Amino acid sequence: MAKSLCCFLLCFLILFNYCSARQQKSRQQNECSISRLTAQKPSNRIQSEAGVTEVFDHNNEQFQCAGVAVVRYTIEPNGLLLPSYVNAPQLLYFVQGRGLQGILISGCPETFQSFQESQEGQQGREQEGQQGQQGQQGQQGQQGQQFLGDQHQKIREVEEGDAFAVPTGFGHYIYNNGNRQLVVVSVLDVSNEANQLDFQPRRFYLAGNPQNEFQQQQQQQQEQQQGSEGQQQQQEGGGSEGRGQESSGDNIFSGFDAQQLAEAFNVDVQLIRKLQGQNDRRGNIVRVEGGLQALLPPRGQQERGEQQQDHLHARGNGYEETICSLRLKQNIGDPWRADVYTPRGGHRSSVTGYDLPVLQKLVKLSAHKGRLYQGALVLPYYNVNANSVIYAIRGSARIQVVQQQGQTVANEEVQQGQVLVIPQNFAALIKARDSGFEYVAIKTDENAMINTLAGNLSLMRAMPVQVIASAYQASNNEAKQLKHNRQESTIGAPGSSRSE
Amino acid sequence: MAKSLCCFLLCFLILFNYCSARQQKSRQQNECSISRLTAQKPSNRIQSEAGVTEVFDHNNEQFQCAGVAVVRYTIEPNGLLLPSYVNAPQLLYFVQGRGLQGILISGCPETFQSFQESQEGQQGREQEGQQGQQGQQGQQGQQGQQFLGDQHQKIREVEEGDAFAVPTGFGHYIYNNGNRQLVVVSVLDVSNEANQLDFQPRRFYLAGNPQNEFQQQQQQQQEQQQGSEGQQQQQEGGGSEGRGQESSGDNIFSGFDAQQLAEAFNVDVQLIRKLQGQNDRRGNIVRVEGGLQALLPPRGQQERGEQQQDHLHARGNGYEETICSLRLKQNIGDPWRADVYTPRGGHRSSVTGYDLPVLQKLVKLSAHKGRLYQGALVLPYYNVNANSVIYAIRGSARIQVVQQQGQTVANEEVQQGQVLVIPQNFAALIKARDSGFEYVAIKTDENAMINTLAGNLSLMRAMPVQVIASAYQASNNEAKQLKHNRQESTIGAPGSSRSE
Amino acid sequence: MAKSLCCFLLCFLILFNYCSARQQKSRQQNECSISRLTAQKPSNRIQSEAGVTEVFDHNNEQFQCAGVAVVRYTIEPNGLLLPSYVNAPQLLYFVQGRGLQGILISGCPETFQSFQESQEGQQGREQEGQQGQQGQQGQQGQQGQQFLGDQHQKIREVEEGDAFAVPTGFGHYIYNNGNRQLVVVSVLDVSNEANQLDFQPRRFYLAGNPQNEFQQQQQQQQEQQQGSEGQQQQQEGGGSEGRGQESSGDNIFSGFDAQQLAEAFNVDVQLIRKLQGQNDRRGNIVRVEGGLQALLPPRGQQERGEQQQDHLHARGNGYEETICSLRLKQNIGDPWRADVYTPRGGHRSSVTGYDLPVLQKLVKLSAHKGRLYQGALVLPYYNVNANSVIYAIRGSARIQVVQQQGQTVANEEVQQGQVLVIPQNFAALIKARDSGFEYVAIKTDENAMINTLAGNLSLMRAMPVQVIASAYQASNNEAKQLKHNRQESTIGAPGSSRSE
Repeated sequence: MAKSLCCFLLCFLILFNYCSARQQKSRQQNECSISRLTAQKPSNRIQSEAGVTEVFDHNNEQFQCAGVAVVRYTIEPNGLLLPSYVNAPQLLYFVQGRGLQGILISGCPETFQSFQESQEGQQGREQEGQQGQQGQQGQQGQQGQQFLGDQHQKIREVEEGDAFAVPTGFGHYIYNNGNRQLVVVSVLDVSNEANQLDFQPRRFYLAGNPQNEFQQQQQQQQEQQQGSEGQQQQQEGGGSEGRGQESSGDNIFSGFDAQQLAEAFNVDVQLIRKLQGQNDRRGNIVRVEGGLQALLPPRGQQERGEQQQDHLHARGNGYEETICSLRLKQNIGDPWRADVYTPRGGHRSSVTGYDLPVLQKLVKLSAHKGRLYQGALVLPYYNVNANSVIYAIRGSARIQVVQQQGQTVANEEVQQGQVLVIPQNFAALIKARDSGFEYVAIKTDENAMINTLAGNLSLMRAMPVQVIASAYQASNNEAKQLKHNRQESTIGAPGSSRSE
Repeated sequence: MAKSLCCFLLCFLILFNYCSARQQKSRQQNECSISRLTAQKPSNRIQSEAGVTEVFDHNNEQFQCAGVAVVRYTIEPNGLLLPSYVNAPQLLYFVQGRGLQGILISGCPETFQSFQESQEGQQGREQEGQQGQQGQQGQQGQQGQQFLGDQHQKIREVEEGDAFAVPTGFGHYIYNNGNRQLVVVSVLDVSNEANQLDFQPRRFYLAGNPQNEFQQQQQQQQEQQQGSEGQQQQQEGGGSEGRGQESSGDNIFSGFDAQQLAEAFNVDVQLIRKLQGQNDRRGNIVRVEGGLQALLPPRGQQERGEQQQDHLHARGNGYEETICSLRLKQNIGDPWRADVYTPRGGHRSSVTGYDLPVLQKLVKLSAHKGRLYQGALVLPYYNVNANSVIYAIRGSARIQVVQQQGQTVANEEVQQGQVLVIPQNFAALIKARDSGFEYVAIKTDENAMINTLAGNLSLMRAMPVQVIASAYQASNNEAKQLKHNRQESTIGAPGSSRSE
Repeated sequence: MAKSLCCFLLCFLILFNYCSARQQKSRQQNECSISRLTAQKPSNRIQSEAGVTEVFDHNNEQFQCAGVAVVRYTIEPNGLLLPSYVNAPQLLYFVQGRGLQGILISGCPETFQSFQESQEGQQGREQEGQQGQQGQQGQQGQQGQQFLGDQHQKIREVEEGDAFAVPTGFGHYIYNNGNRQLVVVSVLDVSNEANQLDFQPRRFYLAGNPQNEFQQQQQQQQEQQQGSEGQQQQQEGGGSEGRGQESSGDNIFSGFDAQQLAEAFNVDVQLIRKLQGQNDRRGNIVRVEGGLQALLPPRGQQERGEQQQDHLHARGNGYEETICSLRLKQNIGDPWRADVYTPRGGHRSSVTGYDLPVLQKLVKLSAHKGRLYQGALVLPYYNVNANSVIYAIRGSARIQVVQQQGQTVANEEVQQGQVLVIPQNFAALIKARDSGFEYVAIKTDENAMINTLAGNLSLMRAMPVQVIASAYQASNNEAKQLKHNRQESTIGAPGSSRSE
């Protein structure tokens, strides 16, 4: 009988594992059989040299339903989030601080010049003089560059309140050039059609040796297996350098044969070791000693630069008219730009595909930033055509979410730093606590629409009084109350319930 | 040994359930490994106060392959299908009767005015005078409204033969203002990209206490579990009213805390109980006592109204130029509008994205309505870019469907009220029985194309005679017969087989 | 105890089968948990009368990740690949030889006339005169046609280096009118939104009795089961002819009732047997005795014809302005049309949605054809927005592919006739062997972009020197080397590694 039990357990475990392994894989189109939504805190915290990466568990059913992954980066002053790209479009919201965002697109013109490194340039030139291996052409190119200082692609200044769109596969890095921590929340839309892989979020680092934020426990196991395999490959591939096995993460260069990379870059193999980030223990956010200098036009000219396009140095893949000059950011934190404002209630401003064409064309996300005063309400509503990811910036609120059968799936206190997903068509009601509530909602459609259920733009207003009366078994007078008593549109000032 | 057997069975059942539970979930992209298509009858029938809802089993493999769900509503005179919205675009076809269709979009202008309720308005005003809790603003707004009568969003008249598009998440209700039953078939395209949830069709009712048509057995079990849970939530959320546990369905308001809804609507909690549909046993189709009065312009002006847009009262979310004024219906039942007509054969008329821009932009479905005379044929064809859902309106036909290996997957007698799916690229041949055959085909592409295999627009005509002769090992003369002997294009008049 | 073991095994097997059967089905959105990519050879070879069909195993994880299927056809001179259509858009690349490609679209005008068969026509007319069963109308139509010769839809000449797009569901056939073997590689994008069925590639043959290339072992089993069933259907459907059970494949006509087809085509049932391909053992590539004659305008006029549209005979379904006249091919094999050229390195030319509008509208694929000289490199790069299917035309190369964690997933020698998938965002480095390397890459986006990681259009160039230095813990001088030492853009001439 013990054997029977054993048989049963073994059998169960094998098959459970088999099926649950596939569960992982077949998370194909979103599964939304949600019985309970809970406010999420980060499930994983990765400390780096100059900052912290906090990851929300993308295997949580609400993130799977919305098809998104959420990460928060806290970057110290002079900290640099290493360049990387991901397999999904991202919308970043800058919660705090100021910084520089670099976008890397192959073939876009290098329209920014920096002159600050004159003495460095001298030093560099002398050293290069000693390196006889370089081709003549390479040498000249470098000489020419040095007289011009350093050229690179456009860098955008970002600050608190900015929403920033990064299309799938675009390289990007963030540098904190302010005096306080830079906090940025990133929502990755892995179910977006621009992601042609599976629904696993994947970040490809171009530098360093960072732990991958999206592959936690299971990945580390895989890593151990692949560690030895990887080493074999390196050996058979010609790379003779022993790779540091102490790290659980690597940048994409580390997987290539060092000799071939040296040929491709036309540099020493010793330098390739640095490219591959070997023995780099700084993590994904590193400190820039001395700080990045003068990478931007003097403040005040930047806005203009965003509009203009520098065609002087245009060359490359022909995208400079389109992708290279795309406007990628918009500030939605500034109360003066509010789209909705209710005295005693709060305000809200949004960015959609109508404002920012990159959202329409490539990213297919939108966002709004809302602020509710003490006790104010977001009147009951539902998202017509998108899932919504709510990140609580400050304060707290009680959020109720209701499914199709009137089933309550959330009645949660959402506090600063927490995330709650409101799935498409699920009805929601938000009520700020005494501290008020500031939040950003990132939505999985470039022109997300809501339908409100109460207030003067609501579906109640859309119906004839007679229909309301019949539908709710109410008198005409009661129907008119449902239709007209709340005069505000989206955000309601706090009121006392009529029964009190 | 008995234990072993027990172990085996237990183990089997646990895992079977586990896997089959996920089967339910992972019905992601359509599965079309169909070995047999059979004509479907409704699998579920829900009787309401003023009508019947009949649901075709959306878990049937042919509906899963096409990624659709199908429902038929029969609404008695003066019956109102309660306002609701669904997580997928719908194409409705009105099989019989006449009625009114209201579309509810948050922020669209209330361009329709009704004056009929003057005495009601008087009565209402008196009652309201006694209610001192209302804010001053609210009071004035209501006063202003009363002098204008009742304002609401546009209502469209619908009648037999109309195809009507309802985008994802748009609220809508249907009222039967005719003298006979109103019968409407609704096809929901749950695999449409506009549905960002999973492939489960979900109807969110705004009123009443209706049983959810798409969640039958399993849902009722869940309900029982969630019933107690829901009650707990209500209590902890502040709602103290005991909810009627006798019902298996609810509208979306029922999941919210009544106190907070009262605050949001600025009405009494007693009225919120009506909003939440408590103790409403009428089902999803309710009787309007006395009937809806004068909601429409006098007949004859309606067509004009459909074209024109009333910008007088425009306000709100800026969609009034686009979404609010979209034309949503087209009559395809009228033989005079046929696109294809074959004497002794039959006729066919269609509505596509070219006719109705909402299909192009938001709904991505199209339809045609066909009528075959006694013994006539739809010549062999296949759908190039869409799945097709055939609903038999009248009469019957034999439909053959063939898969890629020449495998016959259907050879069915399809009768009035039945549904058959013809998957994309599967070849089909329809032959009307003696009673003739009238049907509507709803297709999952806004510009669905067919390729015919016989007749004068067929792929046979497209090939050189020599290619036909070589491909079929036929003489040039035989090849010409295959190419030219059937002179009609899509619908063939009945003929005698040449061998007879 | 033996029973326990038995129980365990039985239980395991049942559930394993149950789950793995569904594994097959739920291959929904691409699964890309790839640990190893290997160069693929065809897994199945089907010999036909006048050619060979070689199929790459589409169940291989790399094809599943990319959502594609790959087939290679080798057609002998005077061989005809029978007309068929598939449930996915295709991009064909003509590796060798010359031929004719016919595209079949219902309702497109028959703008090509052939006069060659005058004596055949005479003979045919006499025979027809003896056939009294034909309707008067049919007779006249045929007479009219004979005076004009044979009319059919446009046929396109194709030759080595042509990329040819075939939209989903479009009928097509290929004829080898040259003197050597015609070799064509077809990539089917089954995960394309134009395929509304599941991810199984399905080819629907319009003629012959060909073995289905995509359904190998499992299909044959099904066939045996369905064989008897199919026979029953035929009998009950009225078709009394015994069907040859010796074949494992059939064209789509074979599944219809012969009597009804005879009625639909208005021909003898005997001829229908030929239409159904009964007892045809020639396979999917058949020999045309005597060869197809004069189906094309004299050479030199063809290019012009491709641009112009013949509206003279326009009739039909109104698509002739759009679908019927779409340009479907572009030569990317000619070195003079190269988009990228590096002396001592190689060259590359591409076709995208900008060149060929059908790719933008209907097919959503693109391609480039590259040639690397001995030892040359494709500098490290990644595909920004597409998966890439590399087919080796001539020579060989070592291809390294790296995943997000720097994990090497391929370090493969890819040789002539082999296929390797490079998934979206995975980094790759290609180095030609001594024989050089010629390849075509077919990508699952109509405007596929790459980002290069080394060279003068690379992401290194896009970054400020200070960022590179900080990211890689390198000196400014080293950062400049990484940024500037490789002066070429995409293809690098072979160099010696600096350490040697």
